[in-house]
Amino acid sequence: MYVLVTYDVQTASPQGAKRLRRVAKICVQYGQRVQNSVFECSLDPAQFEKMKSELEKVADLSKDSLRYYNLGKNWKRKVEHVGAKETYDPEGFLCV
Amino acid sequence: MYVLVTYDVQTASPQGAKRLRRVAKICVQYGQRVQNSVFECSLDPAQFEKMKSELEKVADLSKDSLRYYNLGKNWKRKVEHVGAKETYDPEGFLCV
Repeated sequence: MYVLVTYDVQTASPQGAKRLRRVAKICVQYGQRVQNSVFECSLDPAQFEKMKSELEKVADLSKDSLRYYNLGKNWKRKVEHVGAKETYDPEGFLCV
Repeated sequence: MYVLVTYDVQTASPQGAKRLRRVAKICVQYGQRVQNSVFECSLDPAQFEKMKSELEKVADLSKDSLRYYNLGKNWKRKVEHVGAKETYDPEGFLCV
């Protein structure tokens, strides 16, 4: 499954800035950062559940917001990007 | 069609801060802000094209990033939200 993770972490306090770093660090382990607080992750259901539980342990759910969008199989046809920050196709051809 | 719009605008300069405000202002006209730079928009194809052209006129595409995700018809089953910033269902029952 291809999942989009978006988040808003309230960074008004030092704890918030720390939470932001930790949330981003977890997302980087599971997927590709396409914008500051937007990640695209190619996951199986177990990985998805594990990522969510890690994120929800770190975030302060009274202040922070986490959104997960399951883009389904044909995600490539559903995504358009314009502007800076090119991204790579995680399922594409890798020339080594 | 139900479209998710996410953006990163480079705000290091006063012009960037202005672009950020204008991009957000356009998105607010077309949909619901669910996170700082994440909007969910229920649009027909013509509206989608119009919104995109307005956004791409305002953004500096050498610095800013715009991403559009077409979530398709069954978007409600594809979205999970945890934490702050509750959102409303734009197609849901409105009690007046």
